[in-house]
Amino acid sequence: MRPFKHPAASELSLERVLYALSDSIRLDIVRHLARVEAATCGELDGGRPKSTVSHHFKVLREAGLVFTRNSGTIHLNSLRRTDIESRFPGLLDAILTQKTDS
Amino acid sequence: MRPFKHPAASELSLERVLYALSDSIRLDIVRHLARVEAATCGELDGGRPKSTVSHHFKVLREAGLVFTRNSGTIHLNSLRRTDIESRFPGLLDAILTQKTDS
Repeated sequence: MRPFKHPAASELSLERVLYALSDSIRLDIVRHLARVEAATCGELDGGRPKSTVSHHFKVLREAGLVFTRNSGTIHLNSLRRTDIESRFPGLLDAILTQKTDS
Repeated sequence: MRPFKHPAASELSLERVLYALSDSIRLDIVRHLARVEAATCGELDGGRPKSTVSHHFKVLREAGLVFTRNSGTIHLNSLRRTDIESRFPGLLDAILTQKTDS
């Protein structure tokens, strides 16, 4: 499997991070990842179709929120908490601690 | 002029607020409004075409970030800071204090 592309921490954009978190499925994925060290796509998809979830992971990776690595035949995802925190101090916690209706 | 529609504070959605702030023009408008009590569309448009800016104001109103009222022949916009803060404590400051590249 080819390795996934990820932006450098210095390249992260506030607008792109906010856009990535403006969707309830992606917000769910990030909230889940904030509680674990890493998780497979299957553990994070909530039973949703693979095509839908693949798109959401791509948006999260391109925003710099999620790092995906190949591990044998599976993809392991983790939250880039240190990178996000260094670039946008306090932002992630301020968003993830909010209550949502969903 | 017809009054503009605005969602109640209880109807605000985190995803919609984040989406509204995921655009650099809208982020600029909100940052400007955070520094003043109220501003006309002309003071906030940065010389951009009216059609473009009207759309951005609509997104900001629908997210509950901006309140627009008619005052004679002009529209006066203000930030709904109290409503946003009561619904999503700490969120707005955590976003507006971030540095952007733009």
